[in-house]
Amino acid sequence: MYTYFDYSSTTPVNDDVLNTYFKVLKKYYVNSDSIYPRGVEVYNLMEKAREKTASLLNVLAKEVIFTCSGSEANNLAIKGTALKRMSYGKHIIASNVEHSSVENSLKWLKEYLGFEVTYLPVNQQGVIETADLIKALREDTILVTVMYVNNESGAVMPIEEIKRIVRKYPACYLHCDCVQAVGKIDFDLTDIDLASISAHKIYGLKGSGVLVKKQHVQIAEVISGGQQEFHLRGGTSNAAANIVFAKTLRLALEAFKANKDRIIQYHDYLLQELKKLDKVVINSPEDGCPAVVNFSCLTVTSQVMMNALSLKGFEVSASSTCDSSLNISRVIAQMYQQPERLQGTIRVSISHLHVLEDIKKLIEAIRECVEEYG
Amino acid sequence: MYTYFDYSSTTPVNDDVLNTYFKVLKKYYVNSDSIYPRGVEVYNLMEKAREKTASLLNVLAKEVIFTCSGSEANNLAIKGTALKRMSYGKHIIASNVEHSSVENSLKWLKEYLGFEVTYLPVNQQGVIETADLIKALREDTILVTVMYVNNESGAVMPIEEIKRIVRKYPACYLHCDCVQAVGKIDFDLTDIDLASISAHKIYGLKGSGVLVKKQHVQIAEVISGGQQEFHLRGGTSNAAANIVFAKTLRLALEAFKANKDRIIQYHDYLLQELKKLDKVVINSPEDGCPAVVNFSCLTVTSQVMMNALSLKGFEVSASSTCDSSLNISRVIAQMYQQPERLQGTIRVSISHLHVLEDIKKLIEAIRECVEEYG
Repeated sequence: MYTYFDYSSTTPVNDDVLNTYFKVLKKYYVNSDSIYPRGVEVYNLMEKAREKTASLLNVLAKEVIFTCSGSEANNLAIKGTALKRMSYGKHIIASNVEHSSVENSLKWLKEYLGFEVTYLPVNQQGVIETADLIKALREDTILVTVMYVNNESGAVMPIEEIKRIVRKYPACYLHCDCVQAVGKIDFDLTDIDLASISAHKIYGLKGSGVLVKKQHVQIAEVISGGQQEFHLRGGTSNAAANIVFAKTLRLALEAFKANKDRIIQYHDYLLQELKKLDKVVINSPEDGCPAVVNFSCLTVTSQVMMNALSLKGFEVSASSTCDSSLNISRVIAQMYQQPERLQGTIRVSISHLHVLEDIKKLIEAIRECVEEYG
Repeated sequence: MYTYFDYSSTTPVNDDVLNTYFKVLKKYYVNSDSIYPRGVEVYNLMEKAREKTASLLNVLAKEVIFTCSGSEANNLAIKGTALKRMSYGKHIIASNVEHSSVENSLKWLKEYLGFEVTYLPVNQQGVIETADLIKALREDTILVTVMYVNNESGAVMPIEEIKRIVRKYPACYLHCDCVQAVGKIDFDLTDIDLASISAHKIYGLKGSGVLVKKQHVQIAEVISGGQQEFHLRGGTSNAAANIVFAKTLRLALEAFKANKDRIIQYHDYLLQELKKLDKVVINSPEDGCPAVVNFSCLTVTSQVMMNALSLKGFEVSASSTCDSSLNISRVIAQMYQQPERLQGTIRVSISHLHVLEDIKKLIEAIRECVEEYG
């Protein structure tokens, strides 16, 4: 029996979501674009889910595009903007700690379409300096892409300031990867042109995500096909998954509200106890997202610590699972340079499903690992 | 209670697939790229499914790329080839009756990357003439994309001849959209470089597909991201869906083998009875895929016929559901020019789930519609 501390990687599916999904999948199998009554019925259920999703996010229903993942949403936002608007300019600005789906979309645009990307460094709090953003913005900048919450450090980017700066460039869109923000911090999509959300990070299904694209925003499609999703995403709609997305989001936002203080309490307690340990340093900023604590033991490598914790029944990670082919955390490497710190990064993610006892046991296990292997 | 005759659009999920999926989804939620034991367990299950899928298709496990749809597989094959190999040439050949995901991927390449596409016309049997293909091939042709079975007419393309012709151009890949072939006709992926398959057309899940990419074939990714799917498709793996893909495919191939003769019998009977009706013409070729019968009543429009049949309890379609925003069938319009024929196309798709009585009742209902509205 494992105690799971890798909720930033993925989450178990909420039982209510799972059971509804199963029923919908069984009953409403016909194509949501079929024009006979059962097709229209599925279509209407899906459009109702789109409306509910929009209402939960304070956006319009026509601004919600269902995708098959947060990664696909990031690709659609970035490549979609680039393809549609390259006549306005071929310059994009991003932080240097974006998720691999953003990072590699930018590389793709550089390689295949000759785009130029300015990467903004992060400081030791894991966030960009707004002065750097101001300096980087140009007349031909068509997109700024900065994540709301970093998936490895938990750093919360200064999104409100970034909005104010980008708003002065009306031809430039602002995209925020909100995958790690939804259900974990208060967030506001006002003045964000494009926002990506993933279901499986908020106790929903894998293979399900949303791109919020504000109505004034023009993008091209990445997956070409039929009329689905306002012609912006081809392929038969995964109607059942889209239908339960609304419930997934509602439950996640409710759980956040109900458990916010308890998670902060766990976060603070974990941090306080980790700081007491010899040779342990904290990589997460003090004011980061409470759901993520990133630390390093300077004398135990990530691999050894992960294995040792796993043997004791705790699942944690070393870096983003989408970067798990790398040896060190790409993100923490932008914040700190010491090799011992980078070789020892551990990410713990906290959920409302935890109880205080879980945190206490984890700390005890970490303490033992530091003593045994440090 | 409706009798469903739109299996070419989508299918109900097989109970065995659905129940397995539900169990897997509940139990194996951890990320398949996580390196702790439960992650490795999910990974191994997924890789076993990849091996089984490969074995059923007579290809290698490393040639199976899980995607979220047949449309995505088509996009990945076509755009992936174009992006990776544009230094070899920017010319592509396609039939003029390809699925919208192929058709619009080609338009995308024309618009954003300056590709040139030669479209091969189809004859009244709905297939391309191989002489046209030979004439169209050039030194800078990097891809020929022709579907195995047409989704609207049921025409089976001369794939064996096409293979022989394209093989003479070693720098040119052959892509086949096999979405409507799998589980419906005998097919052979030998000498096909890239092949697309969809799960929801073969009693599997929506949001699940496969691209077979032979090992010598080099493509770029369409959805950039992490290390998933050999770095060719970013986003947390939808492991549960990928795991049940193998079962879906096995059951579909078994059902095809067991029910082949019965479906041919239904097909021939349906065709024979339709031909007896006044003002009814057959659009499908005689030697087409037995699972599809496309016909027109020259005096009743598609819309009227579909509505009338729906009121009688039968669900059929007028054209591809992925083209349902169009008024007439793009495919049949390439085979026939008479407006009455094009305004009246109806596609009936036959499944092993049908019994002869279903076919008889459908014919009776069509006969009544022709008399009432014709």
